[in-house]
Amino acid sequence: MNKRIGRFHVLTDPRFQQRFGHAELARLAAEGGADTIQFRQKSGSVRDMLEEAKHAAAVCRERDVPFLVNDRLDVALACRADGIHLGQQDFPVREARRIMGPEAIIGGTATTVEEALAMQEAGADYIGFGPVFPTTSKDNPAPVKGVTNLACVCAAMRIPVIAIAGISVERVKPVIRAGAHGVAVMTAVTTAENPARAARAFREELDVVIAGYSDQNIL
Amino acid sequence: MNKRIGRFHVLTDPRFQQRFGHAELARLAAEGGADTIQFRQKSGSVRDMLEEAKHAAAVCRERDVPFLVNDRLDVALACRADGIHLGQQDFPVREARRIMGPEAIIGGTATTVEEALAMQEAGADYIGFGPVFPTTSKDNPAPVKGVTNLACVCAAMRIPVIAIAGISVERVKPVIRAGAHGVAVMTAVTTAENPARAARAFREELDVVIAGYSDQNIL
Repeated sequence: MNKRIGRFHVLTDPRFQQRFGHAELARLAAEGGADTIQFRQKSGSVRDMLEEAKHAAAVCRERDVPFLVNDRLDVALACRADGIHLGQQDFPVREARRIMGPEAIIGGTATTVEEALAMQEAGADYIGFGPVFPTTSKDNPAPVKGVTNLACVCAAMRIPVIAIAGISVERVKPVIRAGAHGVAVMTAVTTAENPARAARAFREELDVVIAGYSDQNIL
Repeated sequence: MNKRIGRFHVLTDPRFQQRFGHAELARLAAEGGADTIQFRQKSGSVRDMLEEAKHAAAVCRERDVPFLVNDRLDVALACRADGIHLGQQDFPVREARRIMGPEAIIGGTATTVEEALAMQEAGADYIGFGPVFPTTSKDNPAPVKGVTNLACVCAAMRIPVIAIAGISVERVKPVIRAGAHGVAVMTAVTTAENPARAARAFREELDVVIAGYSDQNIL
């Protein structure tokens, strides 16, 4: 288990493109500088899911990149993931912590400060907050929160906040300035012509913005 | 954890009737003499599933009846079930054993002797074999196996075999004579006018047949 909360999460949900499976997306994302891979698959048999998750987990282990599974605690346990990412309707954070132990990375998606605080209280290691911007990757997205709400949540939390939904390279700067620890992206990488290059652009912007922000703090 | 392999399993899948939830079905089945309750729910959010499973598990714990969860390892872990029952497309038996430990009751559904032997080899504690008779409770049931195939599987296995699908009170005798350790039923109990009484009829027939069969063995 690997308790580093990354700043650049890439979700390997293979919907929206047919070129790459989870393992390949994980490899490309890691190559581009992703420091957390989140395996996300919402359909199909648990057998297939497990097979794919194991391959992706192996790719991440080889590259020492933390590997999280979205939603499915059983799959996370079976592929010895570093942790799990849970939505509000998924497995409860507290139960997941009890089962996975203190070393597991447990993240939760929150769309309000109340949800975020409740998940922090329940033992989450980080919060994915959003949708910060409009997204087309989710069927019924919650109302867009914007950077102002993101800043409020970041100010209220002890644990890192990852900005989710509609994050582009241009939007890295405002969300980090709002106090986000990092960003999570999906289609911005997975549907890019060159996913590794797309990931690299995020990584570089993040590094520049975080470095600049750190300098500012020192001054 | 409670490693007794029951002879009369009742599945609490709440489809096919609207009167009772899982906990109530578990209570009625146990009242009628069920010695294993299998929580089976194939749809809905994991949150709701968990809530229902916890209630049903509490009912079973109170009555010292082993409580298994169908398919969902995460739910089984969260409600501290005594074990899990896995289909061929569900979580693999070997992985489930690794995660749940040696004390967990792990059952598997098999429709052929090869599947049954593979699950035994992978660490299953019992096999649910069938469909022995035609069933209407499954969308795409495998071809009916009949009592002869049941007998072949029972003869081939070290672990107990539970006859599944289309089991009526009248069919208890032939399946036990074929070598089955017990039977699993769903709608025969859950959709009965009086589920506890329906369960009681199975229990009494099982007890009579097993006692008679034991006598015969002694002679």
